[in-house]
Amino acid sequence: MPTRTLRVDLKERGYDIAIGSGTLPQCAEFLAERSSSSHVVLITDSNVDELYADAVGDYFVEAGLEVELLVIEAGEESKNADVLIDLWQTMLAEGADRGSVVAAVGGGVVGDIAGFVAATFTRGVPFLQIPTTLLAQVDSSVGGKVGVNLPEAKNIVGAFWQPLGVLIDVDVLGTLPAGEFAAGMAEVVKYGVIMDEPFFEYLESNVDAINARDSETLQYVVERCCRLKADVVQEDEREETGRRAILNYGHTFAHAFEAATQYGKLLHGEAVAMGMVCASQLAERIGLIDAQATQRQIELLEALSLPTRPLEFDSEEIYRLMWHDKKVADGKLRFVLPTRLGEVKLTSAVKSGDVIAILEGDA
Amino acid sequence: MPTRTLRVDLKERGYDIAIGSGTLPQCAEFLAERSSSSHVVLITDSNVDELYADAVGDYFVEAGLEVELLVIEAGEESKNADVLIDLWQTMLAEGADRGSVVAAVGGGVVGDIAGFVAATFTRGVPFLQIPTTLLAQVDSSVGGKVGVNLPEAKNIVGAFWQPLGVLIDVDVLGTLPAGEFAAGMAEVVKYGVIMDEPFFEYLESNVDAINARDSETLQYVVERCCRLKADVVQEDEREETGRRAILNYGHTFAHAFEAATQYGKLLHGEAVAMGMVCASQLAERIGLIDAQATQRQIELLEALSLPTRPLEFDSEEIYRLMWHDKKVADGKLRFVLPTRLGEVKLTSAVKSGDVIAILEGDA
Ligand SMILES: NC(=O)c1ccc[n+]([C@@H]2O[C@H](COP(=O)([O-])OP(=O)(O)OC[C@H]3O[C@@H](n4cnc5c(N)ncnc54)[C@H](O)[C@@H]3O)[C@@H](O)[C@H]2O)c1
Ligand SMILES: NC(=O)c1ccc[n+]([C@@H]2O[C@H](COP(=O)([O-])OP(=O)(O)OC[C@H]3O[C@@H](n4cnc5c(N)ncnc54)[C@H](O)[C@@H]3O)[C@@H](O)[C@H]2O)c1
Ligand SMILES: [Zn+2]
Ligand SMILES: [Zn+2]
Repeated sequence: MPTRTLRVDLKERGYDIAIGSGTLPQCAEFLAERSSSSHVVLITDSNVDELYADAVGDYFVEAGLEVELLVIEAGEESKNADVLIDLWQTMLAEGADRGSVVAAVGGGVVGDIAGFVAATFTRGVPFLQIPTTLLAQVDSSVGGKVGVNLPEAKNIVGAFWQPLGVLIDVDVLGTLPAGEFAAGMAEVVKYGVIMDEPFFEYLESNVDAINARDSETLQYVVERCCRLKADVVQEDEREETGRRAILNYGHTFAHAFEAATQYGKLLHGEAVAMGMVCASQLAERIGLIDAQATQRQIELLEALSLPTRPLEFDSEEIYRLMWHDKKVADGKLRFVLPTRLGEVKLTSAVKSGDVIAILEGDA
Repeated sequence: MPTRTLRVDLKERGYDIAIGSGTLPQCAEFLAERSSSSHVVLITDSNVDELYADAVGDYFVEAGLEVELLVIEAGEESKNADVLIDLWQTMLAEGADRGSVVAAVGGGVVGDIAGFVAATFTRGVPFLQIPTTLLAQVDSSVGGKVGVNLPEAKNIVGAFWQPLGVLIDVDVLGTLPAGEFAAGMAEVVKYGVIMDEPFFEYLESNVDAINARDSETLQYVVERCCRLKADVVQEDEREETGRRAILNYGHTFAHAFEAATQYGKLLHGEAVAMGMVCASQLAERIGLIDAQATQRQIELLEALSLPTRPLEFDSEEIYRLMWHDKKVADGKLRFVLPTRLGEVKLTSAVKSGDVIAILEGDA
């Protein structure tokens, strides 16, 4: 399949997402079409460095650009304020200025922190996303949310800073550990449930090709997810109208599961898989959907090697942790619940007893 | 004089500047007209705390708002990344969320760092400016530039984050140390030179009232400066077209003077006063203006107790430091030079020999 390009239409902040197989070598051309800068600050992590970022740096250098490669330790722990300050200072020391471009080559951790560096260095420089995890390709690289964690709260400081463009090469997913790949698929399934029933069916029918990481299949999957996310972001760029909230399907539960395990044992996507099942069961319990809609999600998630049942949690603690999530507005716990496969609604009309019953396994 | 309100027209980011005498007690009403938030994070410094911020906090509390008062050490040294992280963490600990408002009560240091906190906490919360220095009232509180320093460079990280509104009470200038007051007046004179000859004449005619900090005179002065700055910002919100650069009149020299003294001995406004004189002499030397235009600036600045002659600097070092300024674009040193009182142009057609001659006192 040839490289396909989608447009995220945000007026003067609009940008393209190019999705293909073997597209990494096009990075310099992709940038040149969007910027006349000759100085690239390439930010990556210690895993992606040798796998892909070195090569990306070389492509830029071959095209005549000056490149600084900044490598952070792989892992969520690096997405913090101290690393942020290090990156600012290193950029300055390496001669970056308002004419530089920041490029992120890596997963969501690299994209989020590099994007925040781009948003703030000299009050903002252009930012190129080259996402290398499935989660980053279908979710975090699109939409402009960037930032870092504080010890007490994830993603609590940051900005909305749209990239200049997103360049996706699905071939890099070949080296992704199985767990990370599956975790990304949880967000993929989410798009089907919240806004695209035919896509949900496509996933059901192509589980084997997906698990085999077939290049054409992945290209279609990533493209569809980017289009869906871009549509939501276009309607609600800064999370103001409530539309963007539908992307949090499963996440109110998931954030509590992650907090309960101190962000240790569970990958975010695994928590989301369990969270979606809980949300769907909750919708069932209050009469929004039938049991079959939940059952299909469970089967698809399991076929993708994702967990679908909450671990051995203390239900009351999880319920309490749900209240700590920063999406709690006006003292109401808000849920994104399916009304059928392909459609969700936001509601805070949920009784605590129902939530706890779900957590205790009384679906 | 009654409180007067100016509009900064930036479409959906537009806002009002209210300027009056004795306006502080109106802060809660001013906020309520612009936000329905009931939680205010009030950021101030250790000097302004007891002088005004406590009272402002009380006005908010009397109006039924919940207020957290966060106090940083007075002084430029506080405008750094560590204090930034402290503020983020304290806000989080005090229960701030995306429904909170950040209010800055203080000079440019407080406004810049509090503004950056507002721009980044939960990816941006509304921000109220209550500037208490002359510099902050006529310059830093208008225009949306916020940020912090790194040890190696001033204002190198930050954002453009327009306030919800700016509330100015000129009476607070009564407690400002003489040096700080004079430093603010340097920026006031700057507006006259770069874009408003009648205002320059007004200043010449009202030196005594200004030095006596006459309330009505100051109200007019602040209002005129805010209008002029707002006009420039409206044309070039993000410093992209070059228009906003005229505000840097005198600043290419000034930044080098400040760097040469390690930001120690000189107040920014003092450096700007000397820098404007140098820039005007440079314009004279290359035939842009006559000697009288420079002379009138010198006399006005001296009447306002500002220095007009560079200290005992090493001219070659100052020239080298000018190149380190982050406004150096495309390897060219750019100057804002007067073409008459009330008009400037940007030029990089200046020979190093002419700059050095000026620095050596050969006007
Ligand atoms: N900005 C947003 O809108 C948004 C949305 C969702 C999630 N996020 C954030 O994204 C982060 C999670 O992103 P993630 O799941 O990509 O985690 P990650 O960036 O930590 O990547 C996961 C692991 O995979 C490695 N890796 C990356 N690409 C690889 C490849 N091609 N081959 C082999 N290994 C590779 C990484 O080094 C890391 O060890 C979280 O911090 C989350 O908050 C942001
Ligand atoms: N954002 C912008 O567009 C912009 C423009 C110009 C300058 N700045 C920044 O502004 C800062 C300088 O601002 P500043 O000159 O206001 O310095 P400042 O904030 O340090 O205030 C100067 C001193 O006056 C004290 N003070 C403040 N109000 C007082 C009052 N009413 N009475 C008595 N004392 C009072 C302060 O505690 C401090 O000690 C610099 O960091 C500069 O980079 C920003
Ligand atoms: Zn997610
Ligand atoms: Zn200045």
